[in-house]
Amino acid sequence: TVECGVPHIGETIQLAHGGGGRRMGQLIEQLIRPALRRSLEAAPWVKDTRHDSAALDIDTGKLALTSDSYVVSPLFFPGGDIGRLAVCGTLNDLAMAGARPRALTLSLILEEGLPLETLRRVLDSAGTAAQTAGVPIVSGDTKVVERGKADGLFINTSGVGERSEQWIHPASIQPGDAVMLLGDVGRHGVAILCARQTLHLESPVESDCRSLWPDVEALLAANVELHCLRDCTRGGLASACLELAGECGLSFCLEETFIPVTPGVQSAAELLGLDPLYIACE
Amino acid sequence: TVECGVPHIGETIQLAHGGGGRRMGQLIEQLIRPALRRSLEAAPWVKDTRHDSAALDIDTGKLALTSDSYVVSPLFFPGGDIGRLAVCGTLNDLAMAGARPRALTLSLILEEGLPLETLRRVLDSAGTAAQTAGVPIVSGDTKVVERGKADGLFINTSGVGERSEQWIHPASIQPGDAVMLLGDVGRHGVAILCARQTLHLESPVESDCRSLWPDVEALLAANVELHCLRDCTRGGLASACLELAGECGLSFCLEETFIPVTPGVQSAAELLGLDPLYIACE
Repeated sequence: TVECGVPHIGETIQLAHGGGGRRMGQLIEQLIRPALRRSLEAAPWVKDTRHDSAALDIDTGKLALTSDSYVVSPLFFPGGDIGRLAVCGTLNDLAMAGARPRALTLSLILEEGLPLETLRRVLDSAGTAAQTAGVPIVSGDTKVVERGKADGLFINTSGVGERSEQWIHPASIQPGDAVMLLGDVGRHGVAILCARQTLHLESPVESDCRSLWPDVEALLAANVELHCLRDCTRGGLASACLELAGECGLSFCLEETFIPVTPGVQSAAELLGLDPLYIACE
Repeated sequence: TVECGVPHIGETIQLAHGGGGRRMGQLIEQLIRPALRRSLEAAPWVKDTRHDSAALDIDTGKLALTSDSYVVSPLFFPGGDIGRLAVCGTLNDLAMAGARPRALTLSLILEEGLPLETLRRVLDSAGTAAQTAGVPIVSGDTKVVERGKADGLFINTSGVGERSEQWIHPASIQPGDAVMLLGDVGRHGVAILCARQTLHLESPVESDCRSLWPDVEALLAANVELHCLRDCTRGGLASACLELAGECGLSFCLEETFIPVTPGVQSAAELLGLDPLYIACE
């Protein structure tokens, strides 16, 4: 159904949706802004979002800045999708620097022919994740490439945060530091790999992709002396520890029996022939 | 030639270059960092670039934030390439909000099989453009997608700037304002279109893609009362004026004879069957 006087934006992405003209304006106003604007409520530090750059007033000039592109396949997986992942992943890169996330940008590369319904679901999910985290999506960009020149949909999110006083960094790691895990490992990676291989398990493993800032904030508020934080993305826990060990010039000692792995992740990992400690997210 | 003890990163991009392990570390340390690190010289407000987020100390908390993805084809064109474009385009989105650019992020989506020499040329160009503008590239990300799932190379750049006191925004446009062009129009778009169609002209048209912040800074320093700024990207001058007119609710009157178009752009546009006033950049 088409409302009288409102041109219909169609069913699939066309090259004209990225051309800078009327069709692109329709896509932005009818689909993209409605999905993302809820994230702007309750963010009084956002002064403007309708020009070439968004305007933000942050109390302090002590910033953290990060950017990540998301190319996950499939776009939807148990427990999440590329939209939620793109929001939570970048929030977490800020949180890992001990920075309170303050604003995100979201840029789309869309393949000609992508169903608009797919885009709508992904953006709704991104908007909900941002709103839940209390972080506004303030700026973005949309490009459309010819059929066959992108894998459906890629998202880049960038984030700005306010750093805390603590210098949370690999260089702050000291001999004797304890390694603490915020949860069990391998869940997101196994969820993606099972979805990719259409591996059907009795009880499907769901991704635990979520914003980690509330956990970090609670640790900071409790005056826990945090030296370094890292989210276990590509390469999993093992790679994260190897990287950190290299960066601080120290050795890490992990006792495998103390690393929580759910039975579902353990058995799916066995089916996939993988070690849960190395299973990566994207 | 391979230096003793230094593993060679190969000739083309492989999926492992995005996998989070040793190959990705090599790509970042041997190719990406060397190309971009010159941009970090003479940027004392950058406190750290080696963690999940970069740390910046900006004097004021009055920020501008923007993000753009670049999917231009071909990757190299007369007068520029995707690397230079990705840096200058995002610097210009900040400049158009009257903001002094302070830091950029640069995220890559690479197609498996991309020659490393292509990546090296693009990154050298991006690094040089950033260094010339005095703006550091502080953070980034690298993803690799399977052959056929991206068009060689996509770049996302995001930027943070410090806003000036003036509220430069479409809402500030007033009846009687003059429209001022900083240069002739259509040059970048014609350069791309000619390169795409392998249209060989006697004197090839070169893109005029460059950072516009020095021009904006000079206008601000001269106390010119700027109300709004816009770079003529997708849709060209005509679309930019239409958009701004819509946003401020006023009519724009342009006299075509006063709009500078070089003879080279004029004749190439005629060959292409296009109007220079509508020719877009990306």
